[in-house]
Amino acid sequence: MMNIAVMGYGTVGSGVVEVLERNRGVISQRADGDIYVKYVLDLRDFPGDAIQERIVHDFEIVVNDPEIGIVVETMGGIEPAYTFVKRSLLAGKNVVTSNKALVAKHGAELLAIAAEKHINFLFEASVGGGIPILRPLQTSLTADVVEEIGGILNGTTNYMLTKMFYEGADYDEVLKEAQAKGYAERNPEADVEGYDTCRKIAILCSLVLGKQVDFEDIFTEGITKISKEDMMYAKEAGMTIKLLASAKRNGDKMCAMVSPVLMKKTHPLYSVNDVFNAIFVRGNMLGDAMFYGSGAGKLPTASAVVADVIEAAKHPSDSMMGMWTAEKALLQPVDGVSRQFFVRMRGDADEKKAALEAAFGEICVLRASGLTGEFGIITGKMTEGTYKKQAETFPEIIQMIRVED
Amino acid sequence: MMNIAVMGYGTVGSGVVEVLERNRGVISQRADGDIYVKYVLDLRDFPGDAIQERIVHDFEIVVNDPEIGIVVETMGGIEPAYTFVKRSLLAGKNVVTSNKALVAKHGAELLAIAAEKHINFLFEASVGGGIPILRPLQTSLTADVVEEIGGILNGTTNYMLTKMFYEGADYDEVLKEAQAKGYAERNPEADVEGYDTCRKIAILCSLVLGKQVDFEDIFTEGITKISKEDMMYAKEAGMTIKLLASAKRNGDKMCAMVSPVLMKKTHPLYSVNDVFNAIFVRGNMLGDAMFYGSGAGKLPTASAVVADVIEAAKHPSDSMMGMWTAEKALLQPVDGVSRQFFVRMRGDADEKKAALEAAFGEICVLRASGLTGEFGIITGKMTEGTYKKQAETFPEIIQMIRVED
Repeated sequence: MMNIAVMGYGTVGSGVVEVLERNRGVISQRADGDIYVKYVLDLRDFPGDAIQERIVHDFEIVVNDPEIGIVVETMGGIEPAYTFVKRSLLAGKNVVTSNKALVAKHGAELLAIAAEKHINFLFEASVGGGIPILRPLQTSLTADVVEEIGGILNGTTNYMLTKMFYEGADYDEVLKEAQAKGYAERNPEADVEGYDTCRKIAILCSLVLGKQVDFEDIFTEGITKISKEDMMYAKEAGMTIKLLASAKRNGDKMCAMVSPVLMKKTHPLYSVNDVFNAIFVRGNMLGDAMFYGSGAGKLPTASAVVADVIEAAKHPSDSMMGMWTAEKALLQPVDGVSRQFFVRMRGDADEKKAALEAAFGEICVLRASGLTGEFGIITGKMTEGTYKKQAETFPEIIQMIRVED
Repeated sequence: MMNIAVMGYGTVGSGVVEVLERNRGVISQRADGDIYVKYVLDLRDFPGDAIQERIVHDFEIVVNDPEIGIVVETMGGIEPAYTFVKRSLLAGKNVVTSNKALVAKHGAELLAIAAEKHINFLFEASVGGGIPILRPLQTSLTADVVEEIGGILNGTTNYMLTKMFYEGADYDEVLKEAQAKGYAERNPEADVEGYDTCRKIAILCSLVLGKQVDFEDIFTEGITKISKEDMMYAKEAGMTIKLLASAKRNGDKMCAMVSPVLMKKTHPLYSVNDVFNAIFVRGNMLGDAMFYGSGAGKLPTASAVVADVIEAAKHPSDSMMGMWTAEKALLQPVDGVSRQFFVRMRGDADEKKAALEAAFGEICVLRASGLTGEFGIITGKMTEGTYKKQAETFPEIIQMIRVED
């Protein structure tokens, strides 16, 4: 039997206890023995909950109990999660976490401790919720050089953009609806500003490069400025708008960014709707692959956490994950990346066409029915740096959204 | 360094040698040492090919060389692959194969030998080509009871059906085109009759149930009777036709089948086109997940084989895969499964409507423009057994295709 402690009895933590309970039979079989939640660490009490008798308020009880072989961290945030996780690893306990902020910031250090101690630090649930992606990257896509990785990594914003696409609703409306449904927090910043997505792509990049990718270095733009008018133009062009995380290799560097993009119907991520997530990987031998599923939610996320617990229980004295070092990875600045741009501007397209073509190459003019006094264009392919320089000469520009190939 | 032998220098075997060569650097890193192809076993010689000096024609050289730690079987077919693989395992050598026919038929026995010898028998490439699915099932979806698994598992037929959908072409035309492009064999039976798909779903079911699912027991219908007229009706109904492998759990039994189905636009497999494959999994905690990528092709398939080689090289004295026993799994007969059916028949819909409603419940009538003297219906939900009984009373029926929810 493996005794574990769950730190944090919120949505994911209580999901972990529920999954372990409901699928007890198959889990015991696959983990080569029962998994027993000996402690749940939380500041709160949960009177009436079956877990109450196992609630502890003091981390020292967890870390000092030699019977605890695996610690599950589902508290979120950097502190005290970081201190508790580090001390657990140093005490020789396997750690499983769903905490993307912690992994993005301290992953290299915590993986190094786990490797030195020959134990596991596992974090499948930190990217893509229930979608298996980190272990497949580490154990199945090993024959490939990953040329590109990314996708739709945030369910809240994908839900909002899907609503805007299908219902023609505006940003503020769909945000309220997402909050009412519990998909968005009262303070939605982490989701809508792209911060959550940014941490997830930082983790994916760090694993792919084997070096630390600091999330602060990743160009990140959220969806707060996306309007129903933008979506009208996108539809007009047979496209949609998605919040895309993308990292493309260029030699030993990667160019990583998070931003809303216009996406064509033929793109494999086009039909990833609502709160679903999808992670796209291009290998130099494999070609394109995509992993799709529930990127968030209590039980899907808990399912990924428990799968990590089972791996740790089966291999308690082995580091099953590859690692990345603390050495800083080189990122390519986004200004050097070539692509097309969708641009909305005030005025009359026919009048400006010659000037626009001189600045942006072969352009395609878009009009959205009902919108007067403005028009849209899709530029030719050009670097972001060149685009910015040219765009300065057009003060009538009111919006720019990148176009994904 | 790990010495390996590749048996069969055809498309996949030569791909394996190419992937090992082209990605040598990262592969050595991930396998904790170089992987060296010491022998390639083939009946033929390959003068001018760099591999020629390592070609051997006699299996005894491979099996009797104590330096060979991993044997890769990419010959295909049952014999002599089965004999060679079994003897390699009995000699204590890890085996990696891409051979679905071998795994579907002898998987239980070969896995048992590997477990007894504490070595690996790995076969990721046998299902879904380059798509990682078997290892994710075994190491990432372990917290779940798999309620349903299936998908589009054959690239050739998916290419053909995609062509029929987008170009309105007929079966014979697209088959010729697929043969000209090298997607279909000169004798296309294994693909178009669904036999290839059937073996793949048998492997998936066996892994999910942990027991032997005999492919002969799986109801299998191919695409040879699908016509451009059928596709016209499907389009009319906002659907497409796909060759679907599906296995749904009902307690400790599963109902598995392979057949063409009408599929709605909202189905996650609807937009899986051309030679791409996708495997759909529904877990009782995870919900829906999907794995998408190149289901065949030289390098994608070789990428999956080499990833297995890396796993075996990292853990040469451990069985990394779960297994299934030789005990026969119980399959539920398809007659008991409820669904809707698309039916084409001669005659006039208005005249027959009352009789059809009496037999098939609430029906939806479909007409395809340009087709006279016939019409289509989609029946109410009913078991396949009931459908068959009712259909006997309508000799004017010219086609039936199942409808997928």
